[in-house]
Amino acid sequence: MKKRVVILGSTGSIGKQALKVVESNSESFEVVGLAVMTSINELEKQILKYKPKAVAVYDASKAKELKDRIKTDIKVLSGMEGLLELSAMEEANILLNSVVGSIGLQPTLTAIRAGKTIALANKETLVVAGRIIMEEAKRYGVDIIPVDSEHSAIFQCLKGENVKEIAKIILTASGGPFKDWSKENLKNVKPKDALKHPNWEMGKKITIDSSTLMNKGLEVIEAKWLFDVDMDNIKVLVHPQSIIHSMVEFIDHSVMAQLGVPDMMLPIQYAFTHPDRIEGRIPQLKLHEVGQLTFQQPDLEKFPCLSLAYKALEAGGTMPCVVNGANEVLVEAFLQESIGFYDIPRYIEGAMMVHKPYDYRTIEDVLEVDKWVRNWVKSQI
Amino acid sequence: MKKRVVILGSTGSIGKQALKVVESNSESFEVVGLAVMTSINELEKQILKYKPKAVAVYDASKAKELKDRIKTDIKVLSGMEGLLELSAMEEANILLNSVVGSIGLQPTLTAIRAGKTIALANKETLVVAGRIIMEEAKRYGVDIIPVDSEHSAIFQCLKGENVKEIAKIILTASGGPFKDWSKENLKNVKPKDALKHPNWEMGKKITIDSSTLMNKGLEVIEAKWLFDVDMDNIKVLVHPQSIIHSMVEFIDHSVMAQLGVPDMMLPIQYAFTHPDRIEGRIPQLKLHEVGQLTFQQPDLEKFPCLSLAYKALEAGGTMPCVVNGANEVLVEAFLQESIGFYDIPRYIEGAMMVHKPYDYRTIEDVLEVDKWVRNWVKSQI
Repeated sequence: MKKRVVILGSTGSIGKQALKVVESNSESFEVVGLAVMTSINELEKQILKYKPKAVAVYDASKAKELKDRIKTDIKVLSGMEGLLELSAMEEANILLNSVVGSIGLQPTLTAIRAGKTIALANKETLVVAGRIIMEEAKRYGVDIIPVDSEHSAIFQCLKGENVKEIAKIILTASGGPFKDWSKENLKNVKPKDALKHPNWEMGKKITIDSSTLMNKGLEVIEAKWLFDVDMDNIKVLVHPQSIIHSMVEFIDHSVMAQLGVPDMMLPIQYAFTHPDRIEGRIPQLKLHEVGQLTFQQPDLEKFPCLSLAYKALEAGGTMPCVVNGANEVLVEAFLQESIGFYDIPRYIEGAMMVHKPYDYRTIEDVLEVDKWVRNWVKSQI
Repeated sequence: MKKRVVILGSTGSIGKQALKVVESNSESFEVVGLAVMTSINELEKQILKYKPKAVAVYDASKAKELKDRIKTDIKVLSGMEGLLELSAMEEANILLNSVVGSIGLQPTLTAIRAGKTIALANKETLVVAGRIIMEEAKRYGVDIIPVDSEHSAIFQCLKGENVKEIAKIILTASGGPFKDWSKENLKNVKPKDALKHPNWEMGKKITIDSSTLMNKGLEVIEAKWLFDVDMDNIKVLVHPQSIIHSMVEFIDHSVMAQLGVPDMMLPIQYAFTHPDRIEGRIPQLKLHEVGQLTFQQPDLEKFPCLSLAYKALEAGGTMPCVVNGANEVLVEAFLQESIGFYDIPRYIEGAMMVHKPYDYRTIEDVLEVDKWVRNWVKSQI
């Protein structure tokens, strides 16, 4: 039977690649729901092509505009309510959550409670509310399958293994476009420099996060929740070719790694097919053509965001939420050239110094902290 | 409960490392039987240290000498009969077969029929009689766990995976000591050059086989039987650092790899602990210290033995047995400097041209071919 998929963020980078996966394997997958923030023109084309049963547009006026425009009797939902209704829709087996930012939190939770398999590309979900999400997933017997290439790699390395035998999780990092820049030169980089990622085609927010290594920091936090591993046992290793997508070292010092061409279609497809694999349109890795793979330790002095993420994990509770919320606002400000590259870690650290972290119990707790930190950062810059 | 191990070839390179594994994990393993060809002095020390219940010495006069010498009431067996009795001994769970050459065949079969888990370092067992061995293992519900680093890697990559989803097995090869030598220079190499393996500490026979790439050829044949993969889907990739021990590419083009320091204790220990892992004394892999991993395709013109192994697989039946038997005699002759480096493939090819391969049904069939080819090669050189 076909797996029926809902995609949140269908006009984003992951969303579009997920649609390609569906298209190349139409005997295996079917799209039943699509959601976007505002991009109704592109969504309209997707509706015609993929014929979902329902769509949601977060922006209510855009939702109305789309509804007036399209002729089919498809259900058009709107607002957060619409996203949540779509996330729980009866017809779906899998929710691919690929929206950007902490807005992805509530849909994930709703889908878990509706018993859907979660293909999770929205890492903020775990960064801000990892404990609640993993507890709920356990309670509802739901699989959370990571769509990040790194976490998908780890997930694959753990197949058939006993998680109690993990010694270390080794997250690989391309190092981003500034790996070989001096700290002095980094002070004056512009968004256009940061947007040139060497290996991956991704959205703007995550590309900037890759250039500051905050992306890797968020991934460390995500890994802690996904795989229930102590932060001291999550390491970051710079691997500029992005061929080894991540590794797991076990207690016997055997290391399992997952490799592939840098193409997000692979982790997306795997999230849809797990525990099986199917043929697809992902290009084959040819290591003799790649020639060499290199490795080095990350430079924490040049990229303080990575250290800040570890510090947030150490502080625990709501602190990762503070780092994430602050970072979202600051990346946006950096993209608008209203702050510099090193203002990102500077203001994050400022927010961390002001915030007293506490153990959150509900989604409302973390959403409140998220709101606070965004306002605090905006008031400072 | 402790796992009780019999080691055939306990004074060889693998045997000694296996004893180190037992020693470092004495709460997990116990030695109940040890066997050697002739080295009774070293065996005597091992008896005192590891206190097995029985030992076997292939050479009958050496067995008698040992029996007369030792004071404990340990059972001393001799000849092939002795090896077989030890392989089936009541007290054992695991047989580690690490003897060199096709002499390892019958003990493996006997242990399978006695229901022992087989830790297989004697690759000739599968090369000459793979079909019989795998059929019998299936019939008796016995696990054959490879101890070669390459096959152990593949075995680990397949943990939790569906073998029907394998696209390719990628055996890595260090390339041996002659990787960068010209064909012209190779014509006159001496045993002492071939015995300098860049990464692995191994016995003489396998070290020469590594220098001709015949070792990799035999591993291709071994992999075909162990993992039931078509020979066209078994590839060899030269990887001089010997850090990635081998890989499996799946149908979705995701590649799983197993990495570690080049230390045979890792695959030996894993064969003993499978499906679990335990801490051990194997050093940790530090990829940032290794720095780089490189890959290239093997040079089949410089190393014809690898092509001959593929040709033997293609011919099927008894042909791999011919290649293996011829190679054993020729390596011995090369070590004694009675033939040159390129005489090894030359005589193997000669034997293959003379032999008409047929589908063997019994161990006796292959032992007869083995005997024939050894005599044929000896008569030619």
